[in-house]
Amino acid sequence: MRVCLTVAYDGTNYHGWQVQPNAITIESVLNQALSDLLKEEITVTGASRTDAGVHSLGNVAVFDTDTKIPAEKISYALNQRLPEDIVVQESKEVPSSFHPRHCNSRKTYEYRILNRTFRDPTKRLDTYFYHHNIDIDRMKKAAQYLVGEHDFKSFCSIHAVVETTVRTIYAIDVEREHDVIGIRITGNGFLYNMVRIIAGTLIQAGCGMIEPEDVKEILEAKDRSMAGPTAPACGLTMIGITFLD
Amino acid sequence: MRVCLTVAYDGTNYHGWQVQPNAITIESVLNQALSDLLKEEITVTGASRTDAGVHSLGNVAVFDTDTKIPAEKISYALNQRLPEDIVVQESKEVPSSFHPRHCNSRKTYEYRILNRTFRDPTKRLDTYFYHHNIDIDRMKKAAQYLVGEHDFKSFCSIHAVVETTVRTIYAIDVEREHDVIGIRITGNGFLYNMVRIIAGTLIQAGCGMIEPEDVKEILEAKDRSMAGPTAPACGLTMIGITFLD
Repeated sequence: MRVCLTVAYDGTNYHGWQVQPNAITIESVLNQALSDLLKEEITVTGASRTDAGVHSLGNVAVFDTDTKIPAEKISYALNQRLPEDIVVQESKEVPSSFHPRHCNSRKTYEYRILNRTFRDPTKRLDTYFYHHNIDIDRMKKAAQYLVGEHDFKSFCSIHAVVETTVRTIYAIDVEREHDVIGIRITGNGFLYNMVRIIAGTLIQAGCGMIEPEDVKEILEAKDRSMAGPTAPACGLTMIGITFLD
Repeated sequence: MRVCLTVAYDGTNYHGWQVQPNAITIESVLNQALSDLLKEEITVTGASRTDAGVHSLGNVAVFDTDTKIPAEKISYALNQRLPEDIVVQESKEVPSSFHPRHCNSRKTYEYRILNRTFRDPTKRLDTYFYHHNIDIDRMKKAAQYLVGEHDFKSFCSIHAVVETTVRTIYAIDVEREHDVIGIRITGNGFLYNMVRIIAGTLIQAGCGMIEPEDVKEILEAKDRSMAGPTAPACGLTMIGITFLD
């Protein structure tokens, strides 16, 4: 059967999702724990190959297995074998045709900025500390230029290899809760570093380094150097994925 | 001059506030960093000697120094020498008579419970994970019996050595924000483990193991064994102190 896992993790101590030699990754820890549990060699396929230091509340991974353990029980048994910074939230059987990257989906990410005078040590792992004043109304205004179907080449790492840089953003919400500003973005897919470059650009708009309207030009330029810096990985959390078909 | 520091920390990696042999504590790290910075032997006196694993956003510490560095600049210089899980939020000069434990004050603590089916790895350091259903209206009702001046002997560790177990609680607020329940308690002082025993007892009320009204009897019994368990340290954060004179 094919089993689908919803996986939450604190990415601080991992070199991202994807298996790589000589580095601990979320995928390699899952493969090892599943192979030990199910006594067969398991290789998971993830929906979102998050970068080093990026967190997740709802990444999705699938794998095939011959086990007799009911799919929905696997999460409980697997969590016993996982470190405390990786926790499977759900396991369920899915059709064998289901592939988490080859189907229509909506993904939601949140970028969190700690905006205050001094660092808060209790929030150091999952926020980006930025002490200059940020006006979130300016961020909201800037964000609206990004909603819709656009060529996001200006918001894509120059190291990315992709067929097309056109993506659709359904919504960007910017909210402040006390000293944390959250940028929540839902789209049909994201280019390499796209959410972090959007966050870096919205921060520039929020603190007056650029005008909110400049985002329109940045988008039209299709030039990475026009957009803001790539905001640090620690502020980014993959919130979840909705599969549409 | 006497300098007062407001100190925030993630207590996960420390054996509490107070200096002890062969263990790293918040106080010992501050003493070392201040002594290095000011080039004289500094010993701080803390307002709240938090336990191992307890966090703080606003603990207070004072020390005496002959330095010529302006008091309000010390925080910036000191933070350069502190690890990322201890951050001084403010430094200021205070009268030489000021002692953070020998004056009237109001202290506020928050106990955070992660109440959901599975653990959330991004909240593992500063919440207590409890997966049974909790009804916060029952917690609120139970909490009201504790407000006011009472003998809190039932809510004090049997290992505490104190002159009196009478304390005043000014307010207890219980709020749920998504899957985190926060119990925020303000009082004129707290006995050893008092907030954690209150949290453990309110959790019992919230999930139906005791009735909210039972808290009245527990209080009157003046017997530690009547109250609930001491909730784990990781859920507790010292929020701040207001000095009244």
